[in-house]
Amino acid sequence: MAQVIEGIAASNGVAIAKAYKLVDPDLSFDQVTIDDVQAEKDRVSAAFSVSKTDLEQIRDKAVQNMGADEAEVFTAHIMVLEDPELIGGIENAIETDKINAEAALKNVTDMYISMFEGMADDNPYMAERAADIRDVTKRVLSHLLGKSLPNPALIKEEVIIVAKDMTPSDTAQLDRQYVKGFITDLGGRTAHAAIMARTLEIPAVVGTGNASSLINDDDQMILNGLDGFAIVDPTDVQTQEAQAKGAAYEAQKAEWAKLKNERSVSADGKQFIVGSNIGTPKDLTGVLESGSEGIGLYRTEFLYMDSAELPTEEDQFQAYKAVLEGMSDKPVTVRTMDIGGDKNLPYLPLPKEDNPFMGYRAIRISLDRTDIFKTQLRALLRASVYGELWIMFPMIATIQEFRAARDIFEAEKAKLIAEGVAVSDDIKLGIMIEIPAAALLADRFAQEVDFFSIGTNDLIAYTMAADRGNENVSYLYQPYNPSILRIIKMVIDAAHKYGKFVAMCGEMAGDQIAVPILVGMGLDEFSMSSTSVLQTRALMKRLNTVQMAELAGRALNLDTNDEVKALVEAEVYAN
Amino acid sequence: MAQVIEGIAASNGVAIAKAYKLVDPDLSFDQVTIDDVQAEKDRVSAAFSVSKTDLEQIRDKAVQNMGADEAEVFTAHIMVLEDPELIGGIENAIETDKINAEAALKNVTDMYISMFEGMADDNPYMAERAADIRDVTKRVLSHLLGKSLPNPALIKEEVIIVAKDMTPSDTAQLDRQYVKGFITDLGGRTAHAAIMARTLEIPAVVGTGNASSLINDDDQMILNGLDGFAIVDPTDVQTQEAQAKGAAYEAQKAEWAKLKNERSVSADGKQFIVGSNIGTPKDLTGVLESGSEGIGLYRTEFLYMDSAELPTEEDQFQAYKAVLEGMSDKPVTVRTMDIGGDKNLPYLPLPKEDNPFMGYRAIRISLDRTDIFKTQLRALLRASVYGELWIMFPMIATIQEFRAARDIFEAEKAKLIAEGVAVSDDIKLGIMIEIPAAALLADRFAQEVDFFSIGTNDLIAYTMAADRGNENVSYLYQPYNPSILRIIKMVIDAAHKYGKFVAMCGEMAGDQIAVPILVGMGLDEFSMSSTSVLQTRALMKRLNTVQMAELAGRALNLDTNDEVKALVEAEVYAN
Repeated sequence: MAQVIEGIAASNGVAIAKAYKLVDPDLSFDQVTIDDVQAEKDRVSAAFSVSKTDLEQIRDKAVQNMGADEAEVFTAHIMVLEDPELIGGIENAIETDKINAEAALKNVTDMYISMFEGMADDNPYMAERAADIRDVTKRVLSHLLGKSLPNPALIKEEVIIVAKDMTPSDTAQLDRQYVKGFITDLGGRTAHAAIMARTLEIPAVVGTGNASSLINDDDQMILNGLDGFAIVDPTDVQTQEAQAKGAAYEAQKAEWAKLKNERSVSADGKQFIVGSNIGTPKDLTGVLESGSEGIGLYRTEFLYMDSAELPTEEDQFQAYKAVLEGMSDKPVTVRTMDIGGDKNLPYLPLPKEDNPFMGYRAIRISLDRTDIFKTQLRALLRASVYGELWIMFPMIATIQEFRAARDIFEAEKAKLIAEGVAVSDDIKLGIMIEIPAAALLADRFAQEVDFFSIGTNDLIAYTMAADRGNENVSYLYQPYNPSILRIIKMVIDAAHKYGKFVAMCGEMAGDQIAVPILVGMGLDEFSMSSTSVLQTRALMKRLNTVQMAELAGRALNLDTNDEVKALVEAEVYAN
Repeated sequence: MAQVIEGIAASNGVAIAKAYKLVDPDLSFDQVTIDDVQAEKDRVSAAFSVSKTDLEQIRDKAVQNMGADEAEVFTAHIMVLEDPELIGGIENAIETDKINAEAALKNVTDMYISMFEGMADDNPYMAERAADIRDVTKRVLSHLLGKSLPNPALIKEEVIIVAKDMTPSDTAQLDRQYVKGFITDLGGRTAHAAIMARTLEIPAVVGTGNASSLINDDDQMILNGLDGFAIVDPTDVQTQEAQAKGAAYEAQKAEWAKLKNERSVSADGKQFIVGSNIGTPKDLTGVLESGSEGIGLYRTEFLYMDSAELPTEEDQFQAYKAVLEGMSDKPVTVRTMDIGGDKNLPYLPLPKEDNPFMGYRAIRISLDRTDIFKTQLRALLRASVYGELWIMFPMIATIQEFRAARDIFEAEKAKLIAEGVAVSDDIKLGIMIEIPAAALLADRFAQEVDFFSIGTNDLIAYTMAADRGNENVSYLYQPYNPSILRIIKMVIDAAHKYGKFVAMCGEMAGDQIAVPILVGMGLDEFSMSSTSVLQTRALMKRLNTVQMAELAGRALNLDTNDEVKALVEAEVYAN
């Protein structure tokens, strides 16, 4: 019988396909005393062998999908299986302790894991070894128990992924050709799975609570990312409705597509810039297809994360040049490295922190590790002659931090010029406004920077003192709360008072409830996922800036997020 | 030769005594193959035996110092040493693997620790067992290696404690009679060690970076908590200077003491309230000695932390009644439970969070676990007839949260009245302002609450996006930064616009640089450590509110924390 599962609409569209569960099976077992030592040893040997075959297949698929570098982790896993000390230790444990293969495997690998983890503080390589052994143990154990682990890299038919949650490494293994949507138990609109789904333009429903326990592998299902629900074992009528809904959405997208070569203009003729957020030069394809008027956020940390060591000046130069050239004369805002928080680099061990979001990250690292920062700035300066470059510093809290970063930039620029290297004389320098302190002092900052870019994801998190990745407090991610609207207004007004440009590059910039208010506040640039650009441009076309300014004024004097949402729905979306 | 070590002045006064290092020795060792199995077993047995003697002594001392409850942890440690499975496992490892005692101890205890930790998610008791084994292993290993662990509970002469950092459990073991001061490598003015030193009224210098490696046990030293440095092996002249400086400080304290029965009034006759922050009814002694005009913050979480289970309504009632009666008609502001963040309860397992400061804590727990919240509110309501009770809710981010808390309060009040229990009809309800969102919306909150209390420790941390306990970003704890002053001003002005009272109960309220600015902004109540009350009252006596308002106005339009500090020093402290 059809069963409806409600969740949060996280990426638009409708998919109809079979479920594929990306959920680990129950791998619990009891330790028992055994008599037949040889039989247990044989079981271990067989489980190792079939695990190795698995991993070789997964590696081959990963090489095809993602390239040899990304597939190296699986080679490391195969090497663990081939380690004679490991299998010797397990055989020894079976013989000495007369315990079953599962228990011997677990005891021996636990010892290695805790040994490697004990060394991980001094040597991050050890933490990776521990993770490798943990992964391999899970695979061998699943074979010993006759259960199968999900192998997402091996999916060969159209599916909807069903998971508790999805990590970046989960999504990296997926073959985009076959994955038609995601549904997860955890997460909100800003979770990794949700962002990935929007990038891939496939529907997603997140935060269902229990989809992964209600849905079985191969269940036929409908995923409705527009309204935020799924139906398992749908009726024919439901399937027809879903097909119609999906078709209507595709038709609307086609309508939006007509705006691709237009500018972003309000009903009363005021021009805005609607730009794209990107992570790598590969994302340029989506940017160019979307008719985006610039790149409002180029997240350079992927250069650092997709690498086995610090990226060289030349590697960075090539990436920045590719993006600047790809955008021809449209502005490209590059954010300097934002590592730390939840983003770590295997080759740059960061201190273990109780609250990494409030810790050593982004510009705080750059100003401390000026060697890394200077390399990035030199690469940017060299690339600056290939387009219109704007540079911004993330996580600026105080004016001294901005001045220190600017001074390093100017010194590197002077050095390059002295070396005879061509650099643009028109690079704009700005800051992310994502820390409340910077917003509160925006009128002072505005006298020193060329532009602001409001990073609402972090700004909301700090202003509400709520980690948006934490389920228990995710209700406090309230982009329409008057407190958030007020701090944004403060920044826009301060920028304009000094004739400075102000952009926004958080999720909120493409949020269809927030856009009318931000248009009313006079935000200059809205930068978002390329997939939202045309929809936003379509919305702007029907907004009057004078009416929206009045609407924003009313919103600022309400009490709650819900009241603001209701106001915009009534004034903008009620027909 | 005399060596000077610079740090942060964290608690006033001067001490001259020997150094006592609260630092673990190097316990590293190599695993080696051994021939004489019996000799290794004997070494283990001897190390266990002497460890047990240590622990029995420490336990006896702890019972004397802190009472039987606090000493129970040491009984648990002794029980670990008496566990036949543990010593059997180690002997077995020596025999089977032919390894030295140190390695056998480590391998076996690591296995237990990782086993217990694996179960800790479901059962917090297991995490404690893992911690017990870790502690005991350290002690046994130190004896195997012929090194001695510090036993702070056994200090019997006057010393200055030298440590990397100090945890609450370290300070709990100290005998206050003999400890004359602290110096630590880590920490800032708001670190636990610093707060503890101010409570004990002994000098402290923190954040030295390397004091614990520069100072040796028994080194003669001077600790100057007024100017923030220590001298190791001082010359006679230096010692005489330090004695004179200490005496002058004691004389100044005597001068302040004369203000004990006066009110807190500015030079031009405006009255303020200078109150105390307390954690338990025991702190009342200090409050009454300080001539404090009320309690601006009673941190009730100690009731929950100093208990093996949730405190009953009756236990809480007795504590609240004791404080209200003890203060007679002076106001007592009680903050409801602020658990979570860095404060956990063994009997109330909280979710493991990536950023607990931005997670499930304080009112967020109370509104979720209304059973716990209602018990606390009932106890407060019953106690309300014994004095002047003000109640405030911590970590309020949105107006809905305040309304939800107020509704629960009103419902419990109505129930008690229906039950015929006497409750005061004049309880004031307010909120902590420690989340930027609440400050930004203070004018809306002011229309619904009776008062605000600005919690600057957390407010600064969230506004700067910097965990003040994290050394790498502690430079961002900038109470005088104009961004912080502006958000405080916003709160004070919003409160006064609606005729509401506004207090401050963070470290900043007793900060002698901040007080002149806060007087200028018209803050109504300053609540602080009792030890700072008289000094602050003395300062207020010489401030003119009109001049301070002008000073505050100038401070708000500066760029940096340092500029504000320099301004106040020039205008208020230069003679």
